[in-house]
Amino acid sequence: MSLVSLPQDLPSILKSYLPTTNSDKKFVTLTYAQSIDARISKGPGIRTIISHPETKTMTHYLRYHHDGILIGSGTVLADDPGLNCKWAPDGSQEEIQEHSPRPIILDTSGKWKFTGSKMHELFLQQQGKPPIIIVDKIPNDKEEYVEYMLATRDIETGSLNWFSLTKKLREDYNINSIMIEGGAKVIKQLLLKPDLVNSLVITIGSTFLGKSGVEVSPDESVELSDINWWKGTTDTVMCARLSKR
Amino acid sequence: MSLVSLPQDLPSILKSYLPTTNSDKKFVTLTYAQSIDARISKGPGIRTIISHPETKTMTHYLRYHHDGILIGSGTVLADDPGLNCKWAPDGSQEEIQEHSPRPIILDTSGKWKFTGSKMHELFLQQQGKPPIIIVDKIPNDKEEYVEYMLATRDIETGSLNWFSLTKKLREDYNINSIMIEGGAKVIKQLLLKPDLVNSLVITIGSTFLGKSGVEVSPDESVELSDINWWKGTTDTVMCARLSKR
Repeated sequence: MSLVSLPQDLPSILKSYLPTTNSDKKFVTLTYAQSIDARISKGPGIRTIISHPETKTMTHYLRYHHDGILIGSGTVLADDPGLNCKWAPDGSQEEIQEHSPRPIILDTSGKWKFTGSKMHELFLQQQGKPPIIIVDKIPNDKEEYVEYMLATRDIETGSLNWFSLTKKLREDYNINSIMIEGGAKVIKQLLLKPDLVNSLVITIGSTFLGKSGVEVSPDESVELSDINWWKGTTDTVMCARLSKR
Repeated sequence: MSLVSLPQDLPSILKSYLPTTNSDKKFVTLTYAQSIDARISKGPGIRTIISHPETKTMTHYLRYHHDGILIGSGTVLADDPGLNCKWAPDGSQEEIQEHSPRPIILDTSGKWKFTGSKMHELFLQQQGKPPIIIVDKIPNDKEEYVEYMLATRDIETGSLNWFSLTKKLREDYNINSIMIEGGAKVIKQLLLKPDLVNSLVITIGSTFLGKSGVEVSPDESVELSDINWWKGTTDTVMCARLSKR
């Protein structure tokens, strides 16, 4: 499916929220689309279109600017996303393949398979890169083309150590800039990590998905800074940074 | 407390979402401010500032254009709001008093008292009008200046009949245009009533209030039409209509 054009006034707004080109500094962007009532889907496992096609183009524009794209296995299993980049200044096939971010799948319980996925199909067509899967245990039956990376966990809490995860991705795979797209569990964790997340880009679609939708609200309140809004045809996009706590 | 100036580009965006001046047609505007994560306060009974002072001025601009302002007793008990109008083209005292909307308090359980409230204080200072209280039973000890109106309820469901309520307000009190500001229970009911609500004006403040906040998400999904966004200093305002179901 081809993309609609990128809105002309969007790049200038996004500019200061994107990683610097050729920088070897770590950069993490948290980005997702939600309804007015803060739902990212109509229900668990239901793929839901929330935003206008122009903000879908924006997502691909963001992917163009990142080395890696991280997503939780729940979302990958529900949506079977391609996670490649379909936008490029010239729109050439080579450019798109080169700039497609490396998919990073957080699948500590080992539920997802690359083979047969949309990602696999795109990779075979040279329209996307093969994934790195973050696991708690390297599987015995490794899949072809897939890289496995062991999740590092905090000894005390047992929760994922995001700092060490992003450090390893940089050191072992040269992935400096990472865009994190979801799902709800991942987003809720990261909204509470201002030291890790450099930018926040949230699309708000003009719809209510209702009470039974999958909600994104962090466990605690979160203040933002450097706020800028972009006004689209039916959506709005908020760019911001998480304030230090 | 005085208001900051009304943003210059706001009236042109709001225009088509406001009741027509001198019209005797019924007009209902649903308006509230929420965080990104769809919370209208940090917790039950906690008064929370979500939006920039300029959107507070917008609220008073909206009040100027409505005959009545309706609010649930939960919010009135928590916030003790003035509900008057502090904005007027000339800013004169007379104009403000004349254009302050009539407060309509939905207090079917009879918990709220006008006497001693902020509303009472403003009324005595000729800076606001006395309220109409919607009750299930006219109290024996009526308060001075207050009008009491019996709630009409659907026989089958026992729930409030909003159509008959707004009709009575028009016929008995000449209140044609009503602005409804909250709280969460009232908003959630009205988001599902496209035949009743003419306009929706929602301010989204650039903050997350977190999981324990008071959430607004309707019981079902809701589609919107005629969408327009206004971009403020730190907030965005969405104007829209509820699509017929």
